[in-house]
Amino acid sequence: MPLPTSPRWLCGGADDKATNLANAAQVVAKAAATHCTSSSAAVPLLLCFPELFLTGYNVGDVLHRDAEPVDGPSIKVANTIRNSVEKHVLRVMAELAKANRVHLVFGYPEKAVDNDQTTTTYYNSAIFISAEGEVLLNYRKTHLWGPYEKKYFTPGSSLAPVVKIGEVSVGLLICWDVEFPEPSRVLMLRGADLILVPTACMTSFAPEVTVRARAFENKLFVAYVNRAGEENGSRFCGLSSVVTPNGDCACKAGEESGELLFTDIEPKRADYQESRDRDPIHLERRTELYRELTQ
Amino acid sequence: MPLPTSPRWLCGGADDKATNLANAAQVVAKAAATHCTSSSAAVPLLLCFPELFLTGYNVGDVLHRDAEPVDGPSIKVANTIRNSVEKHVLRVMAELAKANRVHLVFGYPEKAVDNDQTTTTYYNSAIFISAEGEVLLNYRKTHLWGPYEKKYFTPGSSLAPVVKIGEVSVGLLICWDVEFPEPSRVLMLRGADLILVPTACMTSFAPEVTVRARAFENKLFVAYVNRAGEENGSRFCGLSSVVTPNGDCACKAGEESGELLFTDIEPKRADYQESRDRDPIHLERRTELYRELTQ
Repeated sequence: MPLPTSPRWLCGGADDKATNLANAAQVVAKAAATHCTSSSAAVPLLLCFPELFLTGYNVGDVLHRDAEPVDGPSIKVANTIRNSVEKHVLRVMAELAKANRVHLVFGYPEKAVDNDQTTTTYYNSAIFISAEGEVLLNYRKTHLWGPYEKKYFTPGSSLAPVVKIGEVSVGLLICWDVEFPEPSRVLMLRGADLILVPTACMTSFAPEVTVRARAFENKLFVAYVNRAGEENGSRFCGLSSVVTPNGDCACKAGEESGELLFTDIEPKRADYQESRDRDPIHLERRTELYRELTQ
Repeated sequence: MPLPTSPRWLCGGADDKATNLANAAQVVAKAAATHCTSSSAAVPLLLCFPELFLTGYNVGDVLHRDAEPVDGPSIKVANTIRNSVEKHVLRVMAELAKANRVHLVFGYPEKAVDNDQTTTTYYNSAIFISAEGEVLLNYRKTHLWGPYEKKYFTPGSSLAPVVKIGEVSVGLLICWDVEFPEPSRVLMLRGADLILVPTACMTSFAPEVTVRARAFENKLFVAYVNRAGEENGSRFCGLSSVVTPNGDCACKAGEESGELLFTDIEPKRADYQESRDRDPIHLERRTELYRELTQ
């Protein structure tokens, strides 16, 4: 029972080739074209790509070499691209968003240089670029997984605020963040209707179980957007999905392919409201019993 | 790869007839006999029954009529049963535990009268009786589900401490408690290796998804012990299971039958340790980011 006012979103399926900009341009164009022919074309399209989409995940020192500053010239001059794409990938993505009128979310390695240019810090980040080519949100992964990520990145110091796109409030997490119950809970408390999770996951437990639990216990949508296939000896398990507030998969990709998944996000749909009323796990929390969680 | 020192536990499968003491005696005797013939007979047996096992769940005012005080004579004189079983169910259960040398956990309606005998409060409780017939733990459900439970019960004011049985630390939750991520997390922080969840659940999401997520994200065992079958117009979905710290079901009952499930609980098994080391969701929490959870 889609509401006529509901936004329409798209989550890019994982693809081991989708780490380069040529592929990104193709995916965005294809998504925009598909969206234009759909019945929901009047509402915003949001396209989400996996964790570290722009460079690849298991690429070692490339994570530093190709890192981008979020607030650097690459975004600010999105309308006047003259440099090579290798040097200014964020700029190209912003231009893609604007040219195709599509909101874009994707993971990338972020390079942050302090004011006196003496210290450089690297983050595993996800950026939310509006269909106008502006940065709405930049989130730095707060829970870094394993020695590899800890070698290359510094963890972010805060969870992201939610941003409103049409009628839908969107929160961002990255990969391992969603395996902890706490970050999703915080984003729910901040009003998220949808949590986007660019990820690079190699085992099936999180996409098959954890993501459904997070959606159900917080009564919101979770879009889990994973890489798929082989990359330098790492195999990512795909299984991207969008899970509804009822805990059902609205759409689900396979393990191997780089599919494009489309889902309407309608937080106020009657059956979701009924689920929230019947089983208000998000509301009947007893915070006085949970003190140890923040000690 | 069972460790020779590991305890052996048993979780009673759900049964819509198992609300009476005659059935309880049969189940305990059967469990004890089965255990005696097993290779793990030297380690403790713990038998867990569903939520409100002693009276039934959907029995309306019976919940008050047959409620029992946890610290009343029914426990203290467990060796000298002279009263009818209907009036002193906890006493009979303590005697059963002692006679069969089995730790027993089960749900029951608790009647608490204040010191001056003027106020009576009812709780949806679960009691842990040792193989010596003593009360190790009494937990009052903290998250009451729906108008029915709220009509008959007052919510408990604290989560339970963990109790040690052999080498295993055990925590207790009841039904809806486990659908909130917070209570399991608190019990993990208190050192639980195993969370027992007597439950009366009618839909399959919690047994099939939520319970696995709780075990995996806290790297401990969860035993979800559900009612099954019809009771006064309510249908419980069974699907009792014991889930390991890896998120796998070690054993699982069907939807209808009142099966007895046996599982060895071995928290220190090598593959569980390896899972904790590889994916330490229980350890790498960033409490400074979770302040909103307790506000």
